[in-house]
Amino acid sequence: MEQKMAKMRPAARFYLLYSWSLLLGFICVLSVVYWSYKWHGGFAWDGTLQHFNWHPVLMVTSLVILYGNAIIIYRIPSSQSGSKLPWKILHAGVTLVALLMSVVGLVAVFMFHAQSKIPHLYSLHSWVGLSAVILFACQWLSGFMSFLLPFAPPWFRRLYKPIHVYYGMAIFILSLAASFIGINEKLIFSLNGKNSTSYSLLPPEGQFANVLGMLLMGFGFTVMWILNSVQRQPSVPEHTEDRQPLLEGDD
Amino acid sequence: MEQKMAKMRPAARFYLLYSWSLLLGFICVLSVVYWSYKWHGGFAWDGTLQHFNWHPVLMVTSLVILYGNAIIIYRIPSSQSGSKLPWKILHAGVTLVALLMSVVGLVAVFMFHAQSKIPHLYSLHSWVGLSAVILFACQWLSGFMSFLLPFAPPWFRRLYKPIHVYYGMAIFILSLAASFIGINEKLIFSLNGKNSTSYSLLPPEGQFANVLGMLLMGFGFTVMWILNSVQRQPSVPEHTEDRQPLLEGDD
Repeated sequence: MEQKMAKMRPAARFYLLYSWSLLLGFICVLSVVYWSYKWHGGFAWDGTLQHFNWHPVLMVTSLVILYGNAIIIYRIPSSQSGSKLPWKILHAGVTLVALLMSVVGLVAVFMFHAQSKIPHLYSLHSWVGLSAVILFACQWLSGFMSFLLPFAPPWFRRLYKPIHVYYGMAIFILSLAASFIGINEKLIFSLNGKNSTSYSLLPPEGQFANVLGMLLMGFGFTVMWILNSVQRQPSVPEHTEDRQPLLEGDD
Repeated sequence: MEQKMAKMRPAARFYLLYSWSLLLGFICVLSVVYWSYKWHGGFAWDGTLQHFNWHPVLMVTSLVILYGNAIIIYRIPSSQSGSKLPWKILHAGVTLVALLMSVVGLVAVFMFHAQSKIPHLYSLHSWVGLSAVILFACQWLSGFMSFLLPFAPPWFRRLYKPIHVYYGMAIFILSLAASFIGINEKLIFSLNGKNSTSYSLLPPEGQFANVLGMLLMGFGFTVMWILNSVQRQPSVPEHTEDRQPLLEGDD
């Protein structure tokens, strides 16, 4: 049996897992959009509840799904040979899009709170979520300056790389946790209000959003399994690559 | 600077991080107990809200703090030389205590819900939390059968070990996420009820429990940093150790 498992080519294993993560990610984004359409009146940009609806859609899409895809880019088999620069640019590009989307998602909820006279940043959801976005912004900037700009000395890159990888994972976990808290909080607010079925009776909206939470968990597990099981194989020895001026010589 | 960082002995680095995680863990347990005493009338075993109070205390203590300590046992420097059996028994023992405590914590909330006529298992908090406990029980049993009992063949141990390590981390993340959702949910229920200051005004209880959430985040980050930065050094080559009948020959 061990031989049978070992025989499966690593590339085939990766693409199987990757397809699964893409499928789950796609379903998660569709589900969070559907949740807002079906039970909360769709989308607007006018300070109403429909304005708020951009918040879960943008945060889940950016901080969980796009971000999750960005952190497994270096596990794609074709990234393991040849120049790393295009993959670095892709990684920086996808994470930048995710970061900007998450900022728009934050703007949406701040504007909704302001219009509805709800205080900002009181809940643990907001503390965890804002920590994720602030750490993400720091991570993006320091990653860009250390690995894409040619100024950082090789010893610094070597020192910083495991820290970048660790924080990459930590921010992903925080984002997932913030999503779970947010889904649970939104369901309590929307279902336990007046003229509404209580969350504890698990009406269709509650079932749907709980399942969305479990799908996000499945997506998170798949991304972490890919990071854990598919080891990055440097195309050139680490210490050699670290000494290349990346933007000048790596392409 | 790189030389300066490298000069710090790995054992000293580990114990510094380990002391920090122990301190944070201790503060988290004290805080969750204090939360229940100060704002929710302490503890009882009679189906009342004081019965419920055992739930957060037992879940945080078992699934996050004890569990977090159990998964870094193999990073303790003295576990890296000599027989692994005492460390395996310690790992299995601490996780077993954590598992049993978490089951009692579940019993507490089920009994409270039954007495108060609240439906069971409706919230995302309960779905994520129960997933963590069920996976934990499966993980403990399969770990015990594979690594402590002498029946599993060496090829199976080799195949299963990375899966065990991966799920160990995944369950820890789920437990942290469930704690965050639970704290947020408890604050909404207790502060947004009648005759109570709203959570959105961030009264002392809200501030206190939010800080507890951030401390748990800090504990989780520290444990993951230890797992990530302190590599386990097998005392004997992996394939040799895997062929030893553990309970018979490893001591």
